Amino acid sequence: MSLESFFRPASVAVVGASREKGKVGYEIVANLKRGEFPGSIFPVNPGAREIAGLPCWPDLKSIGSIPDLVVVVVPAKAVAKVLRDCADLGIKSVVIITAGFKEVGPEGARLETEITEIARSSGIRIMGPNCLGVMVPSRKLNASFGGVLPRAGGIGYISQSGALLAAILDMANAHQIGFSALFSIGNKADVDEMDVIHALGEDPETHVIAGYLENIGDGDAFVREAERISHDKPILLMKSGGTSAGAKAASSHTGSLAGEERVYESAFIRAGVIRCDSITTQFDYAQAFAYQPLPQGPNVAVITNAGGPGIMAADAIEREGLTFAQLSESTIRHLGEKLPAAANIHNPIDVLGDALADRYDLAVQLALADPNVNIVLVLLTPQAMTQAAETAKVIAAAAKGKHGKPVLACFMGAAQVADGVRMLEAESVPVYDAPESAVRTIRAMIDYRTWKNRPKRIVKIFPVNRHRVERIVDRHLRRKLREIGEMEAKEILEAYGFVTPRGSLATTADQAASIADQLGYPVVLKIWSPEIIHKSDVGGVKVGLNNRQEVRDAFDLMMYRIPLEVDDDAEILGVLVQEMVKKGREVILGMKRDPHFGPLMMFGMGGIFVEVLKDVAFHLAPLTADEAKQMLMSTRTYQMLKGVRGQEGVDIAAIAESLQRLSQLVTEFPQIREMDINPLVVGPLGTTPVAVDARMSVEPVEAR
Amino acid sequence: MSLESFFRPASVAVVGASREKGKVGYEIVANLKRGEFPGSIFPVNPGAREIAGLPCWPDLKSIGSIPDLVVVVVPAKAVAKVLRDCADLGIKSVVIITAGFKEVGPEGARLETEITEIARSSGIRIMGPNCLGVMVPSRKLNASFGGVLPRAGGIGYISQSGALLAAILDMANAHQIGFSALFSIGNKADVDEMDVIHALGEDPETHVIAGYLENIGDGDAFVREAERISHDKPILLMKSGGTSAGAKAASSHTGSLAGEERVYESAFIRAGVIRCDSITTQFDYAQAFAYQPLPQGPNVAVITNAGGPGIMAADAIEREGLTFAQLSESTIRHLGEKLPAAANIHNPIDVLGDALADRYDLAVQLALADPNVNIVLVLLTPQAMTQAAETAKVIAAAAKGKHGKPVLACFMGAAQVADGVRMLEAESVPVYDAPESAVRTIRAMIDYRTWKNRPKRIVKIFPVNRHRVERIVDRHLRRKLREIGEMEAKEILEAYGFVTPRGSLATTADQAASIADQLGYPVVLKIWSPEIIHKSDVGGVKVGLNNRQEVRDAFDLMMYRIPLEVDDDAEILGVLVQEMVKKGREVILGMKRDPHFGPLMMFGMGGIFVEVLKDVAFHLAPLTADEAKQMLMSTRTYQMLKGVRGQEGVDIAAIAESLQRLSQLVTEFPQIREMDINPLVVGPLGTTPVAVDARMSVEPVEAR
Repeated sequence: MSLESFFRPASVAVVGASREKGKVGYEIVANLKRGEFPGSIFPVNPGAREIAGLPCWPDLKSIGSIPDLVVVVVPAKAVAKVLRDCADLGIKSVVIITAGFKEVGPEGARLETEITEIARSSGIRIMGPNCLGVMVPSRKLNASFGGVLPRAGGIGYISQSGALLAAILDMANAHQIGFSALFSIGNKADVDEMDVIHALGEDPETHVIAGYLENIGDGDAFVREAERISHDKPILLMKSGGTSAGAKAASSHTGSLAGEERVYESAFIRAGVIRCDSITTQFDYAQAFAYQPLPQGPNVAVITNAGGPGIMAADAIEREGLTFAQLSESTIRHLGEKLPAAANIHNPIDVLGDALADRYDLAVQLALADPNVNIVLVLLTPQAMTQAAETAKVIAAAAKGKHGKPVLACFMGAAQVADGVRMLEAESVPVYDAPESAVRTIRAMIDYRTWKNRPKRIVKIFPVNRHRVERIVDRHLRRKLREIGEMEAKEILEAYGFVTPRGSLATTADQAASIADQLGYPVVLKIWSPEIIHKSDVGGVKVGLNNRQEVRDAFDLMMYRIPLEVDDDAEILGVLVQEMVKKGREVILGMKRDPHFGPLMMFGMGGIFVEVLKDVAFHLAPLTADEAKQMLMSTRTYQMLKGVRGQEGVDIAAIAESLQRLSQLVTEFPQIREMDINPLVVGPLGTTPVAVDARMSVEPVEAR
Repeated sequence: MSLESFFRPASVAVVGASREKGKVGYEIVANLKRGEFPGSIFPVNPGAREIAGLPCWPDLKSIGSIPDLVVVVVPAKAVAKVLRDCADLGIKSVVIITAGFKEVGPEGARLETEITEIARSSGIRIMGPNCLGVMVPSRKLNASFGGVLPRAGGIGYISQSGALLAAILDMANAHQIGFSALFSIGNKADVDEMDVIHALGEDPETHVIAGYLENIGDGDAFVREAERISHDKPILLMKSGGTSAGAKAASSHTGSLAGEERVYESAFIRAGVIRCDSITTQFDYAQAFAYQPLPQGPNVAVITNAGGPGIMAADAIEREGLTFAQLSESTIRHLGEKLPAAANIHNPIDVLGDALADRYDLAVQLALADPNVNIVLVLLTPQAMTQAAETAKVIAAAAKGKHGKPVLACFMGAAQVADGVRMLEAESVPVYDAPESAVRTIRAMIDYRTWKNRPKRIVKIFPVNRHRVERIVDRHLRRKLREIGEMEAKEILEAYGFVTPRGSLATTADQAASIADQLGYPVVLKIWSPEIIHKSDVGGVKVGLNNRQEVRDAFDLMMYRIPLEVDDDAEILGVLVQEMVKKGREVILGMKRDPHFGPLMMFGMGGIFVEVLKDVAFHLAPLTADEAKQMLMSTRTYQMLKGVRGQEGVDIAAIAESLQRLSQLVTEFPQIREMDINPLVVGPLGTTPVAVDARMSVEPVEAR
């Protein structure tokens, strides 16, 4: 069911309306009236005859008509009764402002379950409880106690914190920022972030979706839906509570590196969601995304009336990886003809401290017309002759032209530039108080455009032997084994097209020597025990053994020493004797399954230092070829893999393919909870990577 | 000579005063008057009898008394004449506002040289030219055209950009920020950043020095002076123009990694200067540094009236590496007794949405009294019952207590919290609009405190053989050789206590084989040519040669192949045959001499990937033992060196000592321009690191 009645109700009832000013039950009625809501407003309170100048009704039934939207402010214990009345009357949309539910403990949680069940069974959609309400400025709907209705505009806002929404609204009103709608979703008993983001996605008045979230219920659905919507509308989210959870105890390198923060980061990247780290950043971004076209390239022209701020902008442009536009000859010539001799006619264009609005006008127009310029950033400092308001006017007029290029302004100062700032805000030209904030915003716009233009996602499906994997996984689960040992993990990998070193298990030194003889020297010995996760840590890996004697010695030493190092109950099943893999670069491929977002793939520099160097990249599975490549390229390791300083590079495409194959494996087998291939040894172009070691843990799918 | 007369003149003359409102010559007189300057103001203009209601004088001589400070606004060409008059009269302090000097080209530069010479020869100190002037609020001195005199306070400001200073002043006035003095230094013809920072360091009214600089003249002196002042007064600097210069063509890894930005970073770290990346950050920091005590530890208590902002603050605290304070049992008990049941009495303390000022008062007092709390951060969002102003009042009162702990506030919103914000500003309690800004400020305060408490800098001097190094360096310089080849570079290192592998130069395959026989196998062969800087790049290094035949083959192959790879004029002098160094971890030590700041030391992960992985740390020489250790610890490499995952660690102290020895070498030999030891191979505790390869370039000291 849609949220239509939350956006555009013809009539609103407020159950629990109060005569007492300052009480929420009064403020909501008053806000609806002050906002000049054009539909009917029905205050409901059996003890009052009139509230805020409106006739009051004893209960919903007595109104006589069915309100489109009901706002509930009665105490928590009385809410269920109101909902039953709503159900009886066929009311479908209810905002529950009342607090005292899940957030206060078990008794509140019980009440919340009760109201959720009433809603589900009667087809009512609930916003809240424990929320601030709903605002839709273009409809003059202020069904909230969040303050004054803001200006109508293109930003749709969703907040999981009512108080934060109130602060944002206050700031937005101070800066004349316009909204299509604001939703406070409170405890999300029914309507959740997915519903609202979906609705804002459909809403023609919303150009940008912004919000504050503390958690996301269905991660998988969120990614799919947000990815779809991001194509048309940028989504700017603050997501808090990310760091504190941290990585839980994990059995793999991937597991220990893939904390909750990484998961959200990956989900947002995949879905094109633009992450904002504070409300100020979100404001900075939202202004620009809502009303400016996206830049067609990274070339920024800076116009300034002072050298210092121009240098500061130039620094920021370089730091953010943008380009200082090289002005065309014709632009330079025109600037030279029209500006005073002392002016700088190259980028940054310095119109000088005594510039009036006309010089700014000239420079902005010329910069916008220059084919080498994608973005224009106009800086202004308050000097003796500066015309802040007039300059704002010419900037706003130029920004409205047909050039399709974004214009951002940075007016530094306060009282002396206030007129200009207000003018720019009124005209929806984004305006900043420091060049760095403007440049960071440009970077975000370019990143979003790159995301929008990314290749279509096509996930390649490789022919594999699923049955073989099924057998191993099922056997482990039947026996309630959670860890798949190295040999069987490699069997699984082989079924998905990986190459692993030849080798077998030995339980005696003689047997180890015989296997080695068959494999040919040198060989590697590895301890084999389900309880020993990181073999090197306990001296359980010995490489480069060149003859029978060395193999026997290594075997016996492991058998003698390792039991002294590990827990008493670690069962040592033997020693794996393996051919020695040709030298190459070591990388790690891994996966950790997130309960909300599904399998998170990892790539990085391999070996024993992976958790120290942390040169790793993450991406949600399933991976496309392009995404696999992007993962590789986003690490420093990539530079080494490509080959530098006379060293031959490795077969990058082969690693990308390995990542895709692994992505297919973990997508097709949701039982795999966590895994590492470490190292995957990769060689020069044309060679096949070898999965030298692997570990995997499984769990029944129902367990999640 | 001190800048006393710029700070506290008894009388000010304005030469070039104008009757025309809006003109700089008028505005300066008017500003002096409007600021209620208590001393005499002498407008000087032969064509006027009165300016801004003050009697006007035809020239300086006719005034009859000697003004302490002269402000010059006459055209550039007339400035020299004014200065000569000043010299005749014995005037010692002159502010030259006039532009049109060095910044406009060669003719202006000539004028600037002329006035500088007059000043030098007559003992006049000049501020400017091309500057905004001087402001000293506590003396009611506004000898500038920068706007209204700000409130008196503890921040001393210096700016190399007049326009930026005007913007800062405008912002500061909007936020009631107080200053001890503001100096616009313009072209720095005479008084420069060093003079002003020194003067502000001496000024008892200045508690914090802040500023904007585009370059620093004498880097070495700056570091020494700033380090001395930073002990008493924090120095907060914006430094622009850092990124664009980039690293110039360099002959060593260190040289190519040590760009100008790294040099400034290192200089600031060494001098305890707090770098600010934008004017907003500088405001954020300055507020707190000027009026709050430094935190005695990293434990932050957060008080909030809403959950969302509390979580955002918690995230920021974790991200910045601070600690969420664990409240003491007594605090928790008291909070539990006094706050409503639904309140969160653990950190973050949630006083709930309906909190009035009294609950905030209680929570702030208890948090400040808690021995487990070092810093209190108070968050407020505008809710229905929120008392912003009253809450501000109780916060300000609590902040003034005898606890010696910093209190920072974050009032989110605008109009609804404006009264509270103004109140906090008036009471000098730092107030922010987002929790992230407040937390970043706390981080900066803690970093500064750590710097202040760092161990006393004692540079250890090792006994070395200077004479041996002198001989090699002098010989190279005499012969105009700029590069010292591997063998002699190692000889230099040996003279400073480094161990290098044994080996000799061979010019024939037979000779190479004989040397190898003497050294014992395996050996390494390295091409030897002054023109080949990165030997591996051209196949000029071959390791692990096990017998005569392999040595001969490798020799001949190098002689055949390398000339095909390199420039025709690369002179190949032979091949170095060297013992093979025992395996160990490879690190790089290096140095690049900066023309302004002297030798910049580098440490990092060694080998051929140093420029790819960029896991390096920098510090200005000479290094103390502690600084050398800090350099090591600030790299990710350090974790590997310490030993992880069953791998033995290496002798960290031995690396630190090597860094100190290298620091001594480059300090004692300013002729060394740039150098790398790469790799320095380091082994387990008790072993001596071996400098396996080294390169060094020299130049005559006079060349700089």
